[in-house]
Amino acid sequence: MGHCIFCSIIDREAEASIVYEDGRTAAFMDIRPFTPGHLLVVPKTHAANLAELAPADGGAMFQVGQRLAEALRSSEVAAEGVNLFLADGVIAGQEVFHVHLHVIPRTAGDGFGLRGRPTNPPREDLDYLAASVRGRLG
Amino acid sequence: MGHCIFCSIIDREAEASIVYEDGRTAAFMDIRPFTPGHLLVVPKTHAANLAELAPADGGAMFQVGQRLAEALRSSEVAAEGVNLFLADGVIAGQEVFHVHLHVIPRTAGDGFGLRGRPTNPPREDLDYLAASVRGRLG
Repeated sequence: MGHCIFCSIIDREAEASIVYEDGRTAAFMDIRPFTPGHLLVVPKTHAANLAELAPADGGAMFQVGQRLAEALRSSEVAAEGVNLFLADGVIAGQEVFHVHLHVIPRTAGDGFGLRGRPTNPPREDLDYLAASVRGRLG
Repeated sequence: MGHCIFCSIIDREAEASIVYEDGRTAAFMDIRPFTPGHLLVVPKTHAANLAELAPADGGAMFQVGQRLAEALRSSEVAAEGVNLFLADGVIAGQEVFHVHLHVIPRTAGDGFGLRGRPTNPPREDLDYLAASVRGRLG
């Protein structure tokens, strides 16, 4: 494995504003925040993507995200809402190949959101894709 | 508690294209998908938001999201990447007040993404907010 900036942060070799740490996870400020207080939660064990991520690390990462969401509301960030976001794969916007959960505090008029247009497919299309995905679950 | 559409789906009282179910969680097709194959994972125990969600349910929900992400890649959806997304609070875009994790399959040129402009705050601002959030963690 080559250089990984999140592994360097975990190892205290790279600068970061760390908010939380336990045996399995670490959380620190995103240096390119979408909104003030934008945090990242990462597993300490390197995993490039969801397929490599141990489920126990995934569950722990989400639970830290929950705790941070609550803390962001009562902190000076004064979040009124929170988005959790994760990008798995280049096509999905992943830029650092060490799994990370974005915890993005929200306030009115902050300009952050989703880009895209939902559709209203017929039930038979939904059922068809549901059956296909169901068939691929291990 | 009043009517909850996701509770009705879990209880098989409302129509849905169900993909997965276990003792703690259920997953089904979003009826207004951002991309074909867009799924929702929900805890079976009603929780309006992250603050009400039992951490064990949060961890399980994320782990089901991981499994679905993998299944979406090899299914007929042929996802090349996946986004996980969760909205906590009206300001964050939450519309159904039963916690749900979006699992959004991605393919090149699908038009989905984030809206917003990251900033580059100085380290002292990041450190200041990090200290404030750290101080609110239980």
